[in-house]
Amino acid sequence: MNTLVMKFGGSSVESIEKMQSIAQFIIRRLDETDRIVVVVSAMGKTTNELISLAKTAAKNPSKREIDLLISTGEQVSVSLLTMILTEADVSAIGLTGFQAGIKTEGIHTKNKISDIDISKISGHFLTKRVVVVAGFQGLNEFGDITTLGRGGSDTTAIALAAKLECSAEIYTDVSGIYGVDPRLYPSSKQLSYISYEEMKELAFLGAKVMEPRSIDIAQRYQVPVLVSSAHTRSQGTWIKEVSSMEARSITGCSISEKDILVSIGHLPAQAKYIADLFIQLADNEINIDMISQTASTRPGFVNISFTANADDIDLVDEVCHNLKEQHPELSLAIDHHIVKVSLVGSGMRTQSGVAATLFKLFSDHHIDFKLVTTSEISISYTISKELKEKAVNLIAQTFNL
Amino acid sequence: MNTLVMKFGGSSVESIEKMQSIAQFIIRRLDETDRIVVVVSAMGKTTNELISLAKTAAKNPSKREIDLLISTGEQVSVSLLTMILTEADVSAIGLTGFQAGIKTEGIHTKNKISDIDISKISGHFLTKRVVVVAGFQGLNEFGDITTLGRGGSDTTAIALAAKLECSAEIYTDVSGIYGVDPRLYPSSKQLSYISYEEMKELAFLGAKVMEPRSIDIAQRYQVPVLVSSAHTRSQGTWIKEVSSMEARSITGCSISEKDILVSIGHLPAQAKYIADLFIQLADNEINIDMISQTASTRPGFVNISFTANADDIDLVDEVCHNLKEQHPELSLAIDHHIVKVSLVGSGMRTQSGVAATLFKLFSDHHIDFKLVTTSEISISYTISKELKEKAVNLIAQTFNL
Repeated sequence: MNTLVMKFGGSSVESIEKMQSIAQFIIRRLDETDRIVVVVSAMGKTTNELISLAKTAAKNPSKREIDLLISTGEQVSVSLLTMILTEADVSAIGLTGFQAGIKTEGIHTKNKISDIDISKISGHFLTKRVVVVAGFQGLNEFGDITTLGRGGSDTTAIALAAKLECSAEIYTDVSGIYGVDPRLYPSSKQLSYISYEEMKELAFLGAKVMEPRSIDIAQRYQVPVLVSSAHTRSQGTWIKEVSSMEARSITGCSISEKDILVSIGHLPAQAKYIADLFIQLADNEINIDMISQTASTRPGFVNISFTANADDIDLVDEVCHNLKEQHPELSLAIDHHIVKVSLVGSGMRTQSGVAATLFKLFSDHHIDFKLVTTSEISISYTISKELKEKAVNLIAQTFNL
Repeated sequence: MNTLVMKFGGSSVESIEKMQSIAQFIIRRLDETDRIVVVVSAMGKTTNELISLAKTAAKNPSKREIDLLISTGEQVSVSLLTMILTEADVSAIGLTGFQAGIKTEGIHTKNKISDIDISKISGHFLTKRVVVVAGFQGLNEFGDITTLGRGGSDTTAIALAAKLECSAEIYTDVSGIYGVDPRLYPSSKQLSYISYEEMKELAFLGAKVMEPRSIDIAQRYQVPVLVSSAHTRSQGTWIKEVSSMEARSITGCSISEKDILVSIGHLPAQAKYIADLFIQLADNEINIDMISQTASTRPGFVNISFTANADDIDLVDEVCHNLKEQHPELSLAIDHHIVKVSLVGSGMRTQSGVAATLFKLFSDHHIDFKLVTTSEISISYTISKELKEKAVNLIAQTFNL
């Protein structure tokens, strides 16, 4: 008995016609597969429409009730797709998150899957070949309906595949994962595979195809994940464990344009001042991304630069100016005219010289960078917005992305 | 601790504005009530719209999946109304049918409530004053989401009131129960009370305010039911146990215009022929309502008249003509130009002479009737359609309805 989990996002099920096309796609896969779990999102923009409705009802709608409301979206998709499959003589059954045994924990609208009672789906497999499951939702220990937040349906699919010990196929608008976003670099190559770690790093650094959380689960349970499109003949991209022999020095490059760069000069070098800055930022729920610190030319002082989300610019500004009131000697600059260019490749771990190649490349082509941070498998630069295209083209060509 | 169940139908919750007005109405009732269960239907025409969507998806959508689909309608109402109540500082929680412990049995789209695990709602009452519950739905023994069919939200409300040992208030478009449909007789009086039996009889005989099934549950568990409107200052009508001292000879008069009258003359008087007729009608799923049999002037033969639903006219015609082929001597007439006028009053049981008064009334005013049947608390006549208004006016005036 071989089993497969297939997930279809909102745009794949936005109309009855699209669902009928998805149904045919699923039916073709039944030739080679004994049992299929289909995970679906809400139709098209349904979730956003329901959230708008909630905001009409209440200024601050309770999150528990938002979950109760928006979880209906997937339930509608599940029932309609199941009807279509049944009418095409496929033995199929539709399940909500709780009916599929998906248990969650955490805060409403951002729950995490705590466990899946897979006996519920297995039980239906005794009589049905296709089990259609509502993505994005589950039931918490109090019996409340919950949702999983962004990328939740991917998480549902991958967690189910983990429990069923099979692969997960994620069908989206794009035909797979590219080394560089094709909108930025049209001749970018689609990857046939990428490691869990690289995919997570790319996702964290701005690639929007998948949420890091779902890839984390895939990695933990070693679930091979195919990202592909149901509407093209693309082979898609497998996200999987990649051996060090297969590892590429640079797998992909991601661009994030929603950051601001904050630079503070002449801050007293005592740890308490620096801690105070970051505590105040944290108290205001400002997420800090890249952080870099250098010694000032003036003894006893340091320079600190960090990037934050551009949405938080007003809060950041307030925190920094409060700090300047306490220490009038420090200098302050907020630059919102930057992009963050990140290169990811698990080969960086073993292959030396990637950073050197990059620094030389940027220097040769007069691409000045303001802040550099590295992780084990990535290196990120902030550069001026107007240099974005030049940098992306240069990187893509140099590393054959 | 006093408790109350209030039910609001689809038109009461068809928009956020209407829900906000309902919320204020509920909040006013909290002055005099410790705990309120609110049962809601789907917003406006949502259920019909979802059924249309299902019919676009599949010619014969599976009934299990129809239930999964249409149950989302009440879930949306529940979450939005709860958000509105919460924003108005009322401690409230919203529950789907299964979360409210409503267990059902039977066939999909026409389930019946088998039991309610009331501990689920009682548990929430420890911290919340208002529990908003999705009407019309529950969960069957297999863990499938089910719906209760027509009038299902009323049934939910009354069954909850039975378990909570309190009253149920059903808020609808009409301000209460009238002796005669006000569209037929504008000066009709609204009843302050009506017995369960009279209400069931009126509902069976054509009154559309409530489904007989929900009144049956109210009677069995002695739940006082108020039918009223949230938008008028009407006192409404209580459906309750009525002592014989309070019993009126005639409480109400209902008109059904969807019947046909079938008359068969000269049928052999042997039981097997008569049985054969009704077996054939039953085999064709034709529901027979009034039946009357008289002896023919020709010895050994009988005359039979019955009424059936006008929708079944073709089937009835086929069955009768088959019978005539076997017995060419019998005569056959189908009259679709009739209405059924029914008078209901539990006082008929103890007060003699109601039938006599009616026969005299009809005779005095030249209202010929074709078929008469009686039950313990009702009497029904079929008359020509053109006599409808005259008969209704006469009855309403005579019995002060």
